[in-house]
Amino acid sequence: MTLEERVQRLEDLAAITQVIAAYGPAVDSGSSDLAAALFTPDGVYDVPPLRLEGTEALRAMVAGPHHQVLLDRGCAHLQGQPVITLQGDTAVAVNHSIVLLHDDQGFQVWRVAANRWTLSRTSDGWRVSLRTNRLLDGAEEARQLLRGNIDP
Amino acid sequence: MTLEERVQRLEDLAAITQVIAAYGPAVDSGSSDLAAALFTPDGVYDVPPLRLEGTEALRAMVAGPHHQVLLDRGCAHLQGQPVITLQGDTAVAVNHSIVLLHDDQGFQVWRVAANRWTLSRTSDGWRVSLRTNRLLDGAEEARQLLRGNIDP
Amino acid sequence: MTLEERVQRLEDLAAITQVIAAYGPAVDSGSSDLAAALFTPDGVYDVPPLRLEGTEALRAMVAGPHHQVLLDRGCAHLQGQPVITLQGDTAVAVNHSIVLLHDDQGFQVWRVAANRWTLSRTSDGWRVSLRTNRLLDGAEEARQLLRGNIDP
Repeated sequence: MTLEERVQRLEDLAAITQVIAAYGPAVDSGSSDLAAALFTPDGVYDVPPLRLEGTEALRAMVAGPHHQVLLDRGCAHLQGQPVITLQGDTAVAVNHSIVLLHDDQGFQVWRVAANRWTLSRTSDGWRVSLRTNRLLDGAEEARQLLRGNIDP
Repeated sequence: MTLEERVQRLEDLAAITQVIAAYGPAVDSGSSDLAAALFTPDGVYDVPPLRLEGTEALRAMVAGPHHQVLLDRGCAHLQGQPVITLQGDTAVAVNHSIVLLHDDQGFQVWRVAANRWTLSRTSDGWRVSLRTNRLLDGAEEARQLLRGNIDP
Repeated sequence: MTLEERVQRLEDLAAITQVIAAYGPAVDSGSSDLAAALFTPDGVYDVPPLRLEGTEALRAMVAGPHHQVLLDRGCAHLQGQPVITLQGDTAVAVNHSIVLLHDDQGFQVWRVAANRWTLSRTSDGWRVSLRTNRLLDGAEEARQLLRGNIDP
C-alpha cells in the first residue's frame, strides 16, 4: 500500500468508528434526523420485533411514542468497541451494545445485544446500510452475529 | 487537505480519544495528579452538585474522602465511545459515561450520564478545558448535552 | 518523526485497539480459536483463580464447560476504551472490562475489572503476550493495574 492508501484506510476506520459512536448520542438526545442520517437512505435496522427500513422508518422510531417514554425515563444506548473489517467501499463491524434505563431504584441494564453493522462508503461519507441487533440472552443467533469478521 | 494535514487530523482524533479514555483509569486508581493533568490548568469539570475549577480542585476531588470511599468499595468509571468534532485547535466530544460500584451483592450501575467535553490543543498535547456531565435520568439538560456536534 | 513513522504509529494504535476490541466478540461467540489467536503462542491471561498460559490453555477455557454455561445463559464481555502506550515493538494498554450476564430477571453486571495488556508486534500483527485482569472490588491490586502508563 502507498502511504496515501494507508492514510485512507486509517481515515475509513476512524469514520466508521465515529458513525457507530454517534448512534447512542443521537437516539438518547431524541435527534431523530441525525439518527436516521447515520444510515443510507434505504438502510435497515433489524432489531426484533422491529425491522426498520429506510430513513423515514428510522426517524419515526426515534420520534415515536415508545422511544419518547425511554427518553422521559432516562436512557443510554452505549456501543462496545467495534471490530471493523474493511473491504473497499464496504465494511463490516461487529460489537456489543447495551441500553441502560433509569427507574425509581437508579439505573438498570435493560438490553445487552450483539450487533453486526454493514457500512457503505457514500458521497456523504460512511453510512450504515444494515444493522442487525440480537439480544445476548443465550440464543445462538446472537452468537452467530459476533462470529466471523473479527480476525484483526 | 495535504497528506500531512490528514495525518495530523488522525493524530488529533487519536490523542483526544486517549485523553478521554485516560480519565477512568486515572480516577479509579486514585491517581489524582494524572487525572488533573488531563485538564488544562484552568480546566473545569462541571458535575452537579460540584463544579471543579482548575488543577487543584480536580486533584483534591480525586484525593478527597468522598472519592476514597468509592475506591475502597471498588469503582469503575467507564467512557462510552466519543463522537469528536475537530475545529482547529479546539474540539468538542460527546459521549456517555457510566460508573459501576461494588457492594455486598456484586456490582451495580451507580451513575449513567451524558458528557460534553471541550478540548484544547496545548503545548503538552490535547487537554480538557471543560467537561460537562449530567445524569441521564430523564432531564432535558442531559439530552441537550448529547445533541449537536454528533454529525459524523 | 517522518510522515511514514507517524502513519505507522497510528496504524499500531488502530491495530492494538482492534485486538482488544476483538476479545469480547470472540469469547461471546464461542470462537475459541479466534480468541486464542489474539494472544502470542505463549501468551498469558492472568485472571484469578485462573492463569491461562499459551494457545491451548486459552482455547480450552473458551471451549470449556464453565464458559459454555455462560454462553448458554447469554454473556457479554465488554471492553472499556484502552489507554495505549507504544514502545517500539511492544505496547501496554490499560482499560476496564465488564461482563454482563443474562438471568430470569434480565441482565446483571457480573464482573467489573481492571486490565493491563502487554502486546507485541509479531509477524501476524499485534498480539497479546500478557493480559492481567483483577476485579475492581476495592482491592489495591486492581487499582495498581490501572496506575501508570496512562499519561496521554
